[in-house]
Amino acid sequence: MAFSERVTRLKSSLIRDILAAAQRPEVMSFAGGLPAERCLPAVDWSGLPTELGQYGMSEGEPALREAIAAQTRAAGLDCSAEQVLVTTGSQQALDLVAKLYLDVGTPVLLEGPTYLAALQSFQFFGADCLSVSLTPDGLDLDELRLRLQQHRPAFAYLIPTFQNPSGVRYSAANRTAVAALLDEFAVTLVEDEPYRELSYDGAPARPLCAQLQRSTWIYTGTLSKTLLPGLRVGYLIASPDLLQPLRALKQAADLHTCRVSQWQVLQWLGSERYRQHLDEIRAFYRERRDGFAAALACHFSDLAEWQVPQGGLFFWLRLKTPLDTRTLLDAALAQDVAFMPGEPFFADPDRHHGLLRLNFSHVLPERLDTGLERLAAVIRSATPTDKEL
Amino acid sequence: MAFSERVTRLKSSLIRDILAAAQRPEVMSFAGGLPAERCLPAVDWSGLPTELGQYGMSEGEPALREAIAAQTRAAGLDCSAEQVLVTTGSQQALDLVAKLYLDVGTPVLLEGPTYLAALQSFQFFGADCLSVSLTPDGLDLDELRLRLQQHRPAFAYLIPTFQNPSGVRYSAANRTAVAALLDEFAVTLVEDEPYRELSYDGAPARPLCAQLQRSTWIYTGTLSKTLLPGLRVGYLIASPDLLQPLRALKQAADLHTCRVSQWQVLQWLGSERYRQHLDEIRAFYRERRDGFAAALACHFSDLAEWQVPQGGLFFWLRLKTPLDTRTLLDAALAQDVAFMPGEPFFADPDRHHGLLRLNFSHVLPERLDTGLERLAAVIRSATPTDKEL
Repeated sequence: MAFSERVTRLKSSLIRDILAAAQRPEVMSFAGGLPAERCLPAVDWSGLPTELGQYGMSEGEPALREAIAAQTRAAGLDCSAEQVLVTTGSQQALDLVAKLYLDVGTPVLLEGPTYLAALQSFQFFGADCLSVSLTPDGLDLDELRLRLQQHRPAFAYLIPTFQNPSGVRYSAANRTAVAALLDEFAVTLVEDEPYRELSYDGAPARPLCAQLQRSTWIYTGTLSKTLLPGLRVGYLIASPDLLQPLRALKQAADLHTCRVSQWQVLQWLGSERYRQHLDEIRAFYRERRDGFAAALACHFSDLAEWQVPQGGLFFWLRLKTPLDTRTLLDAALAQDVAFMPGEPFFADPDRHHGLLRLNFSHVLPERLDTGLERLAAVIRSATPTDKEL
Repeated sequence: MAFSERVTRLKSSLIRDILAAAQRPEVMSFAGGLPAERCLPAVDWSGLPTELGQYGMSEGEPALREAIAAQTRAAGLDCSAEQVLVTTGSQQALDLVAKLYLDVGTPVLLEGPTYLAALQSFQFFGADCLSVSLTPDGLDLDELRLRLQQHRPAFAYLIPTFQNPSGVRYSAANRTAVAALLDEFAVTLVEDEPYRELSYDGAPARPLCAQLQRSTWIYTGTLSKTLLPGLRVGYLIASPDLLQPLRALKQAADLHTCRVSQWQVLQWLGSERYRQHLDEIRAFYRERRDGFAAALACHFSDLAEWQVPQGGLFFWLRLKTPLDTRTLLDAALAQDVAFMPGEPFFADPDRHHGLLRLNFSHVLPERLDTGLERLAAVIRSATPTDKEL
């Protein structure tokens, strides 16, 4: 079987296996990043125009592009509807970015840790993935400068707001410094903001793209975390000089995004009903987060350290005694508990043991204590005692 | 701007420009391949389950995969639901196939002419596109053997039923011979059948994939030509050994296809209502085809030769005096007539002058004579006279 060279870099998905195992109803899953079922709004399909059954434009529906641009301008990033490309989920934006920039060996700059599916997508296209460490404040600026001096990355892929998996929110000062460095080295920024609206302690900061003076940029977002992921509607907004090739890449990928989905999203964006819905899900997730923080404090204080995330859907735990968290999976699943080991979120997984990503939105509050207690017991029994050490 | 090497092979789209020009309401467009508006059925969205708003499986909805497998088995290709991957339109199947097989320089075997978007997609990924001529009966078998002896293509991409753009339907004997040759040289077949159901003179033949004894295969289809293209639901069905990498590629491309669209398609597939709808659109398109054939005979008999297609949406004209049909576009558009030049459908466009693809389903019967008369006049005035020759 002669597949392409790049297929050798297709990750056989540990994650896929975890999520498949987590499907069993008895499993308490801290593994996924799904919206809570209760946060999926009921939608109305009456009034959907028949003509949306026909082929549409690769860029997306004009009215939706305008609504996305308006929402993004309100968030502080100046842009026009012409700069918006509607994508089939924001996953597709990653695929288009990879196609646009990556040859085998192209250097790319990523956070360490970073979003797993982005890392896998860029690696699949052959990128040389360089990491810059995350601190609770944002990117490590010394490391960033060093990387930019040593390499000429095609782009930096960053998730400055409620980062996945770490939950980090770059501070205002860190954003300004990162933007200045990217400008100084004229490195393109790909800014991914899926969790922007899931902000529980105050408003999210202005997009990093908005602070660039010189670098080109691509800003991506999605409706999957706030509305309905099953619709598969995401978007990217880009510097004008990127639009022509990105549109051609979108056309080659799937002609255009489902128009029925685009219409449904348009019924929500910018509406009072959407604002209310966002308030409701923020309140719901905030409560889940707070309950999770309390349960963590109860079961994990002796085992791990963490920051309470100000947004997003995840806690990121650092074990006090590092061990390869992938080795905990089987024991946890045997106890009907699923979680995400931290290693796969790094370009160099074997140098980053002892980290776990725990989703706080999915497990029901009444099962939370049992789930975390069992997970803590699995970790405890795998941790060498002082005597063994 | 440092884009990837493959971006240099992104075609600046002549086609896109034609279709954009053809959007003007006064233009009589023979250029596109859109279903007629009147053939888009009214659909009912009531009863859509709320849970389809959540993330879904990369392979597609289980019930839809079963329905697609059942339909394909009924067409004569033995397959199971597990072999079905639902894609975001069949365009995405081309993208996945390209990712699976193509490195820069990988030889691929295509019909000459072939489907433009497939040619562009494979060229974008760097394929060395080898052509085998089409005859009214199917592939030129001597040429096919020669190509297979000279090269080891990663796959053959064929459209045996109402081929786009030529309208050719491979004969039963030609299918058997092609399958035997692919088996002999163990070359993978990618069979694309978007127009299978648009058959106006008798039932379509059994898929070519069904006749393979040894070669691996991928069979692709779509709901865009018979139901609603705006839904973006296509599919591929593949040999079992291809499923794991194709599923991973699909996941990396857009996680999964819109579930709302998949649900709507499932309401139709296999139903009596769908059978009736297919009968209706076949009758509608048959009538359009016959009207078009009559108008062509009236205006083009001195200018061109053609076969009346037994299915699909296109006539393929060969001018008696060949000229670069791309040079006719501006004059035609100035007369408010759009058509598709033949050259771009070939891997070696400059060796194939004098061919035009004309869509017969879109232009209203009452404007047909005017449109074809004007197009004929444009061609006539561009054709050197005997004296000039």
